Amino acid sequence: MFIPTIAALPDNVPFVAPEELERDRGTPFIARLGANESAFGISLKAEEALRAALNTSACSWYGDPLSHDLRTALSSRLEVPMDNLCVDAGIDSLLGLTVRLFLQPGDTLVTSGGAYPTVNYHALGAGGVVKAVPYNNHHEDTIALAEAAHQTSARLVYLANPDNPMGTQVSQEAIETLISQLPHNCTLLLDEAYIEFMPAQSSLPIRVGDANVVRFRTFSKAYGMAGMRIGYAIANERIIRGYDKIRNHFGVNRLAQIAAVASLQDDLILTRVINEVQHGRERVYALARSLELAYIPSATNFVAVDFGTQERATTVLKQLAECGVFLRKPMQPPQDQFIRIGVGTEAEHNSLSEALSALICQ
Amino acid sequence: MFIPTIAALPDNVPFVAPEELERDRGTPFIARLGANESAFGISLKAEEALRAALNTSACSWYGDPLSHDLRTALSSRLEVPMDNLCVDAGIDSLLGLTVRLFLQPGDTLVTSGGAYPTVNYHALGAGGVVKAVPYNNHHEDTIALAEAAHQTSARLVYLANPDNPMGTQVSQEAIETLISQLPHNCTLLLDEAYIEFMPAQSSLPIRVGDANVVRFRTFSKAYGMAGMRIGYAIANERIIRGYDKIRNHFGVNRLAQIAAVASLQDDLILTRVINEVQHGRERVYALARSLELAYIPSATNFVAVDFGTQERATTVLKQLAECGVFLRKPMQPPQDQFIRIGVGTEAEHNSLSEALSALICQ
Repeated sequence: MFIPTIAALPDNVPFVAPEELERDRGTPFIARLGANESAFGISLKAEEALRAALNTSACSWYGDPLSHDLRTALSSRLEVPMDNLCVDAGIDSLLGLTVRLFLQPGDTLVTSGGAYPTVNYHALGAGGVVKAVPYNNHHEDTIALAEAAHQTSARLVYLANPDNPMGTQVSQEAIETLISQLPHNCTLLLDEAYIEFMPAQSSLPIRVGDANVVRFRTFSKAYGMAGMRIGYAIANERIIRGYDKIRNHFGVNRLAQIAAVASLQDDLILTRVINEVQHGRERVYALARSLELAYIPSATNFVAVDFGTQERATTVLKQLAECGVFLRKPMQPPQDQFIRIGVGTEAEHNSLSEALSALICQ
Repeated sequence: MFIPTIAALPDNVPFVAPEELERDRGTPFIARLGANESAFGISLKAEEALRAALNTSACSWYGDPLSHDLRTALSSRLEVPMDNLCVDAGIDSLLGLTVRLFLQPGDTLVTSGGAYPTVNYHALGAGGVVKAVPYNNHHEDTIALAEAAHQTSARLVYLANPDNPMGTQVSQEAIETLISQLPHNCTLLLDEAYIEFMPAQSSLPIRVGDANVVRFRTFSKAYGMAGMRIGYAIANERIIRGYDKIRNHFGVNRLAQIAAVASLQDDLILTRVINEVQHGRERVYALARSLELAYIPSATNFVAVDFGTQERATTVLKQLAECGVFLRKPMQPPQDQFIRIGVGTEAEHNSLSEALSALICQ
């Protein structure tokens, strides 16, 4: 019925949703800390803009396919020409488009084993081959990524910085070296979903002249808009024109565009959320220490906490879910002995703390 | 840089947005009648649900990837099992997924010349070939579609019922015959975006046992939610599982899911909008008659009005835009002598009427 590439795909789903788990257990979670969402809401200016928009035709009119107002604001903020920006319905959607631009059936995408799986899902969906290299001490290994790219004549290399699910970051120099060592005709997909939580000086400067780098950013994390579906790519204008050839031009919803523009006009949102996240990470670190669990210092809004073995991590994850705490864990060894604990509200953290302490100390 | 299929694509865009035209002219339109959007807003229950949602984490939490609540409501409404429903970010997105399920480079999609162009855009984006057959007396020609499908060994046939841009409908019997005459391994894509405006008795009964039909519906038109991006496919469960292999599982925004569920709980919205649209069509018919212009009776929320020649239609379209009235017109002969006039609010219609009367009678 389907073309061979599709027929060969497994019936897999990248993630089971918390809503699905809630339906299974018959009651909502009391702490939703597993999907790397923001517990600190959207910008107050965005909320105000959304309330005002409900008095207009914002729901009934298609969104501007050029996202002109948002690209104007981003261009000014990032000091990048508008022709180097493509706004789409979140990084997941952009990753789906990207593999279709670059991968023919049989072409390789190189990534890290256990890194963000949605890029693999899309690469396989385009008939691509996924080559995964191991993490190095819980960091994505830029040297191994470059080597694997050469060995496989890869068309794409995926690197998330900061990383998900481990929360680590690699240096600007390491990324520079990776870019300089990419094979001919290979493009780096630099996923910066969590970049706002990383110290600014460690971020690679934007150089849109680079024809072999696409950077992905989102309003889902620090701006708290995961449910609204809006993100963007920063790249050489030739790559941006590629997106324009295949994207859903009317695919970004109008409320998301309105909220994103308003968020960029809000000087307080990032400071407030970054501050909350820093405090929240410290709370998770303190909880881990109090329970004699190791953890990986994080440059994101979640913390990978070490439960020693995959079996124990899996058991604890399940027990926490039974206590009403939704979390996820890395899927591949050796990271699969960790649980990824998202920064939540104080109330969510207290629920986690109580449940986890009871489990560990029982 | 890109794979050959993509490199060969033109830098084309299916539609120029009204916002882009407004930026060019430096001032907003006074009547937005060209994008087949609803002028009658969203359900009051949906608006209420959205306002309440802004007090929750609805913007910050990813939407349920299974759209469970919406599929439950649709299943009950349509008397179709949930496994036969796939919710996604609008019909455009579903069409993009569909061509990827069924078309390999070189495979053919059959459609009507001048019909909804986004399916062609996506088919070409997947490396497919588009074969277009002429309309028959402004109706999509189901006999010609079936013949062309056999001649080209097509994998997909696209039929919009009611049609866009002409607003005509074909009979249930004609569609039944088309389905029965499809070649082996060819699937009918039945786009029913405007179905709520069509007399119910003329709609083909849903038979999810048919393995060669996918029906597409949306909240964009009668439910007034074009800006929110949510629609669904009804199909055999094997096809639905295909969508699950490649769709963006977290791609439907949470507010759209909330508004769609609330809309289905609103007994008044459809009656109210269908009534408004019927009155609005009558207003357009009357305007056309008063100006001695022919028109095609419509089963949708727009009316194709005949300006005699392509040149005249193009000139009038441009002049109306200068007067602040946004419209679009069919792109291919012989339909390109028509202008597609959307049903608007009374104020929008009056602006159109005034401008058009002045142009025609000058």
